[in-house]
Amino acid sequence: MNPITTFLSCDWGTSSFRLRLVKREGLAVLAEASSKEGNAATAALWNEAKQPPEQRLDFYLAIVQKHLQKLQEEVKTSLEGVPVVISGMASSTIGMAELPYKPLPMAVDGSDLQTKTFEATVDFKHPVLLISGVKSNDDVMRGEEVQLVGCHFENTAEQQLFLHPGTHAKHVLVQHGQAVSLKTYMTGELFSLFSKKSILAASVEEGGQLQDASNRHWFEKGVRASQEANLLHNAFLVRTNDLFRRASKQENYFYLSGLLIGSECQDLLKALPASIVLAGEDVLINHYHAALGVLGIVGLCPLQTKNAVEVTLNGQLAVLKHNAA
Amino acid sequence: MNPITTFLSCDWGTSSFRLRLVKREGLAVLAEASSKEGNAATAALWNEAKQPPEQRLDFYLAIVQKHLQKLQEEVKTSLEGVPVVISGMASSTIGMAELPYKPLPMAVDGSDLQTKTFEATVDFKHPVLLISGVKSNDDVMRGEEVQLVGCHFENTAEQQLFLHPGTHAKHVLVQHGQAVSLKTYMTGELFSLFSKKSILAASVEEGGQLQDASNRHWFEKGVRASQEANLLHNAFLVRTNDLFRRASKQENYFYLSGLLIGSECQDLLKALPASIVLAGEDVLINHYHAALGVLGIVGLCPLQTKNAVEVTLNGQLAVLKHNAA
Repeated sequence: MNPITTFLSCDWGTSSFRLRLVKREGLAVLAEASSKEGNAATAALWNEAKQPPEQRLDFYLAIVQKHLQKLQEEVKTSLEGVPVVISGMASSTIGMAELPYKPLPMAVDGSDLQTKTFEATVDFKHPVLLISGVKSNDDVMRGEEVQLVGCHFENTAEQQLFLHPGTHAKHVLVQHGQAVSLKTYMTGELFSLFSKKSILAASVEEGGQLQDASNRHWFEKGVRASQEANLLHNAFLVRTNDLFRRASKQENYFYLSGLLIGSECQDLLKALPASIVLAGEDVLINHYHAALGVLGIVGLCPLQTKNAVEVTLNGQLAVLKHNAA
Repeated sequence: MNPITTFLSCDWGTSSFRLRLVKREGLAVLAEASSKEGNAATAALWNEAKQPPEQRLDFYLAIVQKHLQKLQEEVKTSLEGVPVVISGMASSTIGMAELPYKPLPMAVDGSDLQTKTFEATVDFKHPVLLISGVKSNDDVMRGEEVQLVGCHFENTAEQQLFLHPGTHAKHVLVQHGQAVSLKTYMTGELFSLFSKKSILAASVEEGGQLQDASNRHWFEKGVRASQEANLLHNAFLVRTNDLFRRASKQENYFYLSGLLIGSECQDLLKALPASIVLAGEDVLINHYHAALGVLGIVGLCPLQTKNAVEVTLNGQLAVLKHNAA
């Protein structure tokens, strides 16, 4: 495979590992492998192995190598020399090599991100580009900075918002081609805690689509409730909705989702950006789009949606080009 | 023991069981027993036992009987005929007998609560008074209604607040001698989820006292932050406080506590009652008192604090007197 026209994209999160062989032109994915070998699980294995610290990098790269092998067999061509770009938690304390965070502001073209290059070796025949995260005075992200780069923000004086939903949703403000502020919201994690580990677990049930009229109704009810009363109180109504047989457990699941996403997005009403780019998993994008609709934000500022994979590949390639010797 | 001058107080929650032999005059506790045999654990045992439904009451009373026996041995006197007053989750679907909720309004002297009397039998030689919970249009409580009765609210035209901190904190408004509205806040449960089950678990550590200057500082910082920004975002700062070495894990524990209690109590500023009675465990009372101080509420409306045990005994005795044949 030609190392000039392709690259290997590695999206290495806390709980998952993803490797894709990508054609630079048009970002076509030629082959793909994924597993649950996230950085948390890998760090646990590494700690158990009790090997000397200088072997840490090789230990982590062996996992990449294993998946690379699968891709190679799939495309029936040697991938030797094709560069691997890694973003996400791989640059954190639990990752293959810890890199410091790039402090804000950061250029949204990806030109000043903190990166480290590892040359190809006999054991791992690919140059590796590891991309680090970004910090503000009191907040951090790792992985989303690459997705932000992949959104191709224009250089304008107006404040544009990059909104990345997820376990720890990120709101990044962009101005004059620079990311200037960063806020994390624990929306996804709290949804999971409430719906799986709290007293509300017995009152919600996953399943069904937001498009279903009754689910949509309860989702929107949740978004509206989030603007009217306290989250700590509203959340308990998930239990009484069920106790008083007002909502089915499935409808209640959407109500809880609306409550949490509505709470997060309420902040946008307080300081409305000039435009919003929503980038993430399709299901989440749909939920956020619906919530922004209920809040009237869709009518107030232009909204673009982007798929998480597309912006990750886009962003990684941009950073790779900046770091090409 | 004289059944006219004493009673047995049973406070039977979801996860704990408490039985006290109490002198009616002055509410002196003569003997006490407690265990982890809460209604959840008892219901699980009952379901496993697969006995006919008509034996449910006896199954539950056997637990009371076991603890009664201990008290009897302690005071070296027969307790035969001494009435048992039970409040809490024992009147719920997971309890000994399900009783419907009393809908609001409810008289704060305890005269119109939903109760059920079980006569003494050969196996259980005590009359039993089971007290049910209270509901509003969209909220519920079981156990706190008795504590509210135990606070002895006066009959005034002004709105007084009964605030009971806990896993599911309760705010009950009292007016003209009637409880007229009820709101539950999941403050205690969310604190537990965040500090034990979330990404924040690694950044907090229990221990130390609120009185310690640095803990108090971080608690108050949390309360103030709760008024300025979104809980879903503020909570993530518990992680970055630790990551950036700004607070110790113990200080962070108090910061998180301040964030959550501050969020809950923010609602009081929006609709300030004429006075507040804080009733609950001493440690929680101290935290809430401190939070109400930071919010300026202490200076704005009179605040009384009451101990949970005292108001439970007081309230149970009042209901017992109303139900004496």
